[in-house]
Amino acid sequence: MWSKKRLKGERMSFSKRLGEREVIRTICKHLDVMPEMPIPFGDDVSAYNIGDDNLAIIKTDMLVDKTDVPPGMSVWQAARKAVVMNVSDFAAKGVKPVVILVSLGIPTKLDRKAVEQIGRGLNAGAREYYTHVVGGDTNEASDLIISLSVFGTAKKDTLMLRSGAKPGDLVAVTGLFGKTLAGLKILLNCLKAPKKIYKYLVDSVLMPYARLDEGLALSRTEAVTASIDSSDGLAWSLHEIAKASRVGFLINKLPVAKEVEEFARINDLDPLELTLYGGEEYELVLTIKPDCWRKAEEAIKKVGGNLLPIGKVTAKKQALLEINGEKYSIEPRGWEHLSTKE
Amino acid sequence: MWSKKRLKGERMSFSKRLGEREVIRTICKHLDVMPEMPIPFGDDVSAYNIGDDNLAIIKTDMLVDKTDVPPGMSVWQAARKAVVMNVSDFAAKGVKPVVILVSLGIPTKLDRKAVEQIGRGLNAGAREYYTHVVGGDTNEASDLIISLSVFGTAKKDTLMLRSGAKPGDLVAVTGLFGKTLAGLKILLNCLKAPKKIYKYLVDSVLMPYARLDEGLALSRTEAVTASIDSSDGLAWSLHEIAKASRVGFLINKLPVAKEVEEFARINDLDPLELTLYGGEEYELVLTIKPDCWRKAEEAIKKVGGNLLPIGKVTAKKQALLEINGEKYSIEPRGWEHLSTKE
Repeated sequence: MWSKKRLKGERMSFSKRLGEREVIRTICKHLDVMPEMPIPFGDDVSAYNIGDDNLAIIKTDMLVDKTDVPPGMSVWQAARKAVVMNVSDFAAKGVKPVVILVSLGIPTKLDRKAVEQIGRGLNAGAREYYTHVVGGDTNEASDLIISLSVFGTAKKDTLMLRSGAKPGDLVAVTGLFGKTLAGLKILLNCLKAPKKIYKYLVDSVLMPYARLDEGLALSRTEAVTASIDSSDGLAWSLHEIAKASRVGFLINKLPVAKEVEEFARINDLDPLELTLYGGEEYELVLTIKPDCWRKAEEAIKKVGGNLLPIGKVTAKKQALLEINGEKYSIEPRGWEHLSTKE
Repeated sequence: MWSKKRLKGERMSFSKRLGEREVIRTICKHLDVMPEMPIPFGDDVSAYNIGDDNLAIIKTDMLVDKTDVPPGMSVWQAARKAVVMNVSDFAAKGVKPVVILVSLGIPTKLDRKAVEQIGRGLNAGAREYYTHVVGGDTNEASDLIISLSVFGTAKKDTLMLRSGAKPGDLVAVTGLFGKTLAGLKILLNCLKAPKKIYKYLVDSVLMPYARLDEGLALSRTEAVTASIDSSDGLAWSLHEIAKASRVGFLINKLPVAKEVEEFARINDLDPLELTLYGGEEYELVLTIKPDCWRKAEEAIKKVGGNLLPIGKVTAKKQALLEINGEKYSIEPRGWEHLSTKE
């Protein structure tokens, strides 16, 4: 993979000269492609064939404080989030992560207490997802950087890639959306929320959860034709599956959290905007064979999760939202990194 | 592993409050240890058992421009060096790296040409060592950061760890020392060198090579009892093996490059200091069963390398240098990161 996660086109540029997408495109242009790559560039994880259809699954993702850590997030939470970000991609592929390596960039201003919190947060995240941090290195850097590499193994045919969605498949998600963008607006823009929903919305940002149990349970059903996590928001994730699978979508039941509807009403925001174009969310976005729906639903219920149908895969390469008989286009955009908001 | 590479005690502190060694110690204190780790914390790579005594070997190491990139080193060279740094640890363990993931931190000031050079440098390094870059991610950061994760597989009993040296084993290296510290002194402190050795010394810094062929050839001989690369300098590497193997050393033939002797003479420096306490070198430092010396030497010659005997492993836990019958203590120190020189 070259993770296109968090790439919202040139609008999401972190460089004044070059966007993230352009950086990746430029780098990739100069890389020789490994023959017989089991997972193509552009999916959430990378793989290497270790024999008998067994794959080594590897993934790296870097947390940088200035773009990934909103105000109000503790160092412990940031370290734990670095784990969740990476595990979420394993969850989306249906692969159990087993070991984690950590590369740290530590600013000189960081004190012992903060370093302790990094250790504790990494361990908490790792153990939460049944894995261990087994090594790493540390360096001086201007930003706090927590770059993780995660490793696991999988049988080739159990992998849930982005590319298998077929017209007629059902589209589903593992939870409600919009909470994190609402939470970020509270943390970043000081928007208001009544006490009873404030904590719920803010916690969705500070304490995200990867849907690992759900992803592992689903991978065993063989019901899933395509899968991605929603760390770049629902709309962006749908477009990524559409692109990789060469299909379109008709979404007719947006998974809006009721707390998000209330937050939107109070702050005069569009709940659809919060739901579709958020990010920093770690639900799974899935396409499912229609005759396997029941099996998928049962598998996910057994691990305490939810499978919410939100629409259908279409042959026509459009991403459409249907509300009261009217159709609207779903745009390929999502949450932008913190620094681009400054 | 938690790489203790480039950790020269608190003296090498990158933090005004906390040294690198202390950062690692603090983080590790809070990590649950994975049961049955095939390679203990502290060696150069980490491992995970994937069945039938096959190990997945993983390693991460981060290059940060302000501490790892001296003046005169191009972006292309820095990207290639990031590969060499990581491959060198695989070489020391006798493991073939197969795929590389890249996590980039890109400052906003970096232009397209520089990003292209990163892509080219990464690819050049990867292909030089028979491997491919198969994925990664990119982020905005204040420093240029090239964090690599390397993956390979190995049979458990072919691994060359730090911990197997026995009294009576021979100590050997794969090349001459002192060149990189001389080169760094030219680049950083503007020390002088005659034209005929200038390029040789400076190139040793700008274009380092990992001894991968040598490491792989040696791992097949079963002659090696302990191995480490010398990225922190010869003295430091010897002390690391001594600590992991609970042995000592008597070094009686220092592998000083003749160009280093000349450079030292011209600049009134101690050639022993340059040879023992350098760094950013990627030779292998090895201990070898005496009755297997010939076999090891032949294996390494077949791949075009050299095996230079420099001393013996001792039961007494001291690291000693013998010159003209006099014994001197070898201190556990080495090259310090660029930023600590400022």
